[in-house]
Amino acid sequence: MQTIRPEIEEFELSGIGKVAAGALDDPDVIPLWFGESDLPTPKFIRDAAVQALDEGKTFYSYARGTMPLRAALKAYLDRLYGIDLDPDRVTVPGSSMLGVMIAGECLVGPGDEVILVSPYWPNVRQVVRIMGGVPVDVRLDEGNDRWRLDFDRLEAALTPRTKAVYVNSPSNPTGWIMTADEQRRLLGLCRERGLGLIADEVYHRNVFAGRDPAPSFLEIAGPDEPVFVVNGFSKGWAMTGWRLGWVVAPARLVEPMEVLSQVNSTGANVFTQYGGVAALEGGEDFVRSFTARCRANRDLVMETLGRHPRVRLTAPEGAFYAFPRIEGMTDSLAFCRRALKEAKVGLAAGYTFGDGNESHVRLCFAIATERLKVALDRLLPLIDGAV
Amino acid sequence: MQTIRPEIEEFELSGIGKVAAGALDDPDVIPLWFGESDLPTPKFIRDAAVQALDEGKTFYSYARGTMPLRAALKAYLDRLYGIDLDPDRVTVPGSSMLGVMIAGECLVGPGDEVILVSPYWPNVRQVVRIMGGVPVDVRLDEGNDRWRLDFDRLEAALTPRTKAVYVNSPSNPTGWIMTADEQRRLLGLCRERGLGLIADEVYHRNVFAGRDPAPSFLEIAGPDEPVFVVNGFSKGWAMTGWRLGWVVAPARLVEPMEVLSQVNSTGANVFTQYGGVAALEGGEDFVRSFTARCRANRDLVMETLGRHPRVRLTAPEGAFYAFPRIEGMTDSLAFCRRALKEAKVGLAAGYTFGDGNESHVRLCFAIATERLKVALDRLLPLIDGAV
Repeated sequence: MQTIRPEIEEFELSGIGKVAAGALDDPDVIPLWFGESDLPTPKFIRDAAVQALDEGKTFYSYARGTMPLRAALKAYLDRLYGIDLDPDRVTVPGSSMLGVMIAGECLVGPGDEVILVSPYWPNVRQVVRIMGGVPVDVRLDEGNDRWRLDFDRLEAALTPRTKAVYVNSPSNPTGWIMTADEQRRLLGLCRERGLGLIADEVYHRNVFAGRDPAPSFLEIAGPDEPVFVVNGFSKGWAMTGWRLGWVVAPARLVEPMEVLSQVNSTGANVFTQYGGVAALEGGEDFVRSFTARCRANRDLVMETLGRHPRVRLTAPEGAFYAFPRIEGMTDSLAFCRRALKEAKVGLAAGYTFGDGNESHVRLCFAIATERLKVALDRLLPLIDGAV
Repeated sequence: MQTIRPEIEEFELSGIGKVAAGALDDPDVIPLWFGESDLPTPKFIRDAAVQALDEGKTFYSYARGTMPLRAALKAYLDRLYGIDLDPDRVTVPGSSMLGVMIAGECLVGPGDEVILVSPYWPNVRQVVRIMGGVPVDVRLDEGNDRWRLDFDRLEAALTPRTKAVYVNSPSNPTGWIMTADEQRRLLGLCRERGLGLIADEVYHRNVFAGRDPAPSFLEIAGPDEPVFVVNGFSKGWAMTGWRLGWVVAPARLVEPMEVLSQVNSTGANVFTQYGGVAALEGGEDFVRSFTARCRANRDLVMETLGRHPRVRLTAPEGAFYAFPRIEGMTDSLAFCRRALKEAKVGLAAGYTFGDGNESHVRLCFAIATERLKVALDRLLPLIDGAV
């Protein structure tokens, strides 16, 4: 018997970490590899955390989140979606990623299969593997106008061992936004087959096409269905370094969610939660201006990279990534290493987002437009000669 | 097939949460139920986090912890134990509890048995259950002078399914400190049987008897043994609300630990890590004065509660809890509810710390001495008539 679980021992860095290792602090590199902009968190949000620190708010608090933050989340979500959310369904366990992990802990046992709508953020695959489950990719189709979920293929992938479906919309890395109709159809399928659903909606405010916010499963799922809606502060309010997210869980799980939040992290940092309240209550101007910047940057990417003869790029509807397919390029990791070395641009290798993405790269277009232009200027010649 | 895992759905609040629910914000209650003092985090530590916030340190950083914090941890641990730690073995995943969880993810698969040296902090039991494992309690013997680990009983509890041992020293709730000899003997047993070891050393600086710091497995385990030494900032530096801890993992797991840190939380909050550096580099005066306060409080507890004719109380060697057995009292939860209602003192019910503790309660004696005196004065009459 091996002491360390073999499936853990073989974990290796993602196709982002493998590229970035050793070059993170190189000031000459323009970093498009991570999912963040170059904007620090807005000052009024930082100030709220500073004030909490100054006031000595440094003690344990509620494992499911402070009362002010959970009240602010209820008010925010009610206003955003026109719902009346039971505030006891909201848990703030630390980061959104920890929210996905906790949802996995609730749903995935050994040998359970989990459908992952792909391409997806690679960590999600590891959530399933940590829990002893089996990830099953169902890839979106890359249409000319938008990405599409093929429900026939999704249904064909279901087996008696299928336990849950994970879907991320707006999507990292494709920018796909699931329509309300697609959400209803997926929820119907989950109901019919008794499947759990993990809906990762962390880009809900990063929207370029259609309604802001993007459609949410909170608008259609009943309060006690096995649906976990995960969200967080990183992407909408430039709070990536804060590690603060939330989960809306089934009503029956109030007590287990408290235990899970305790066991995984004893809850989120207490003074950061005051920053969260400030973001929800005063952050709309920032959300709008950040979305405007990202939309302009998306248009720039489409007009340059999108028109390159060797590139196929579906216009992102949300999030802040482009996920181009580069014709003739078949080793995305090698290409990203070349881009780092020769063009000093940090990219994420496509293969890491699930099978079928070996000719893709992901680039984050949330940084300042002028700097993004420089990065694109450096990248285009490399694509001319990509192999 | 049930959609939510049945073992998760049946999770319920601990014997702390059940008592405290609804009374957390009552200013008349003297809270001895949680593991923290009434001291806010020292100002110089808060100031370091404030400075980081002011400087806009709000971006993603290394998932295993910022370079300055990991360097400070290496320097601190080297100095403390006279070792030369490979800094790559240090990971800062968020809270120490998340460190225990990640160690569990590395070691525990479905059906694996984990020996828990009891009494223990109840969340640890749930770590094993989340991973599909089976917790097996081996209880310390309550001697007249100190608690003792009976290695014969521990060996007798091992089966072919035993995968790991969890031990917490200095111990919550007993105050037991494992001697260096006991550590060597346990490590030898783990080596002989191929078992993993999770050593929770979060109270390593809360020491009243013997050497400060308490003996550590870092002093005796080899760099690539399946030993996870978990620690954190909460208990030594009054940083409970910060959720910042560290794990020293086997050398071969550098890459898996990075992945696990990413998958569980995408790493710890970035600006809190500057507070961690300040605590390690400038926190010795605070550690000493806080230990002096806790030692005086321990003596007070021994002179009052410890002399009560119906109380059996072994003097705590470390941590900051008393774990008295109250003669004639057999329902610790009911007793704690009475203590809350009638004496306005918040206690933790013994049963929650593992089997065999139904006649115990845990009280934290880290608060200001004058307030602790009031709490004890309120409690003693209740113990006179305890049933």
